[in-house]
Amino acid sequence: MMTEKERAGRAAAHAVEDGMILGLGTGSTVHFTLLELKVRMDQGLRLQGVATSQRTEILARELGIPILPFSAVDRIDLTLDGADEVDPNLNGIKGGGGALLYEKLVAEASDKVIWVVDHQKMVDTLGRFPLPLEVVPFNLEKLWKKLENQGYHPRVRMQAGEPFVTDAGNRILDLHLQAISDPEGLHRELKLMSGVVETGLFLHMAEEVIEGVGDTLRHHFRK
Amino acid sequence: MMTEKERAGRAAAHAVEDGMILGLGTGSTVHFTLLELKVRMDQGLRLQGVATSQRTEILARELGIPILPFSAVDRIDLTLDGADEVDPNLNGIKGGGGALLYEKLVAEASDKVIWVVDHQKMVDTLGRFPLPLEVVPFNLEKLWKKLENQGYHPRVRMQAGEPFVTDAGNRILDLHLQAISDPEGLHRELKLMSGVVETGLFLHMAEEVIEGVGDTLRHHFRK
Repeated sequence: MMTEKERAGRAAAHAVEDGMILGLGTGSTVHFTLLELKVRMDQGLRLQGVATSQRTEILARELGIPILPFSAVDRIDLTLDGADEVDPNLNGIKGGGGALLYEKLVAEASDKVIWVVDHQKMVDTLGRFPLPLEVVPFNLEKLWKKLENQGYHPRVRMQAGEPFVTDAGNRILDLHLQAISDPEGLHRELKLMSGVVETGLFLHMAEEVIEGVGDTLRHHFRK
Repeated sequence: MMTEKERAGRAAAHAVEDGMILGLGTGSTVHFTLLELKVRMDQGLRLQGVATSQRTEILARELGIPILPFSAVDRIDLTLDGADEVDPNLNGIKGGGGALLYEKLVAEASDKVIWVVDHQKMVDTLGRFPLPLEVVPFNLEKLWKKLENQGYHPRVRMQAGEPFVTDAGNRILDLHLQAISDPEGLHRELKLMSGVVETGLFLHMAEEVIEGVGDTLRHHFRK
């Protein structure tokens, strides 16, 4: 039996129409989207992709999906991506994979955004999943201390004993908040801090969420 | 006769007290501050510096000024820096030298900030000097277009035929605005844009500005 991730991920590939320029997200669910895109391409579907991470670009190229640099496209027809948490307004937290900056920039350049998730990602209130911030390395310690003093419980994301480095050369601070009562206010507060490049709060971006629930799918649409 | 830049720059070095940790700005005026610090060190003044750019770090090391990494200091006693424009509230535009991000992060970690300028930098309204934005490379073209559509007249800063690269690996967009009626509102609007890392609007940061005016100095203090 397919996992929820695989079911949702593969389903999203069927929203793609011939000739589209696609934004290709990053993560374990959208991984299956890419696999299903490959199946559809073998059946004749034509498409070009823009990758949101080096990881996705490598996978896409292995599958034979033509990849364009983001700078070479004016608009993207449709972006298919995962999410770490999604609330009933289809606002979400992203960045568990560390690709939040490019994922947000690609989403903002897209005519439509669809997220694919398993049922555990759907929540009433955002915040149990740690909120990632992409931050510049130069003031990492001071920003950590400032956020700690504000009660935001930041942790420097690590990888193999070193601070994780994003594709843009920045670092990640994960905020362990448990519950975010005002996502818009929090995003503004954090994005306005010097040294914060981007936040993992993706608000009013996804038009549709495809949720894998056991052996079925649930489609959520933004109101 | 000393130029206004040299007179103001050298004067600022006399605000330094023994044993201070100094933030060392970037540019042609603060260059003279560093030269005068060297004179005072030869007379026995002890200090340690934190550099706001690779350029300043190189100059400081040549002069024998001990340099600490920003991450190694908790607070900075005093930062001495230049500015490209300063208004009567001592708000300013910085970033003509491309070091706005690190300059702002160092200024925010400083107990006191003094700017040194020649008299042409003092203006009634900010904005004749192009406002620099430090931006991520990934969406440079799209951000340029968005700002152009909003009437902000952006230009990609170039160097030797290529986009200028900041010490943090980003790019600079210079906004040719002529007049900024609401610096705080504009800073917020621009900093909140995805892809904008920092703006060159330095608001409520300088406690004092030392202005070279002919062969005299004028000291301005924040109200």
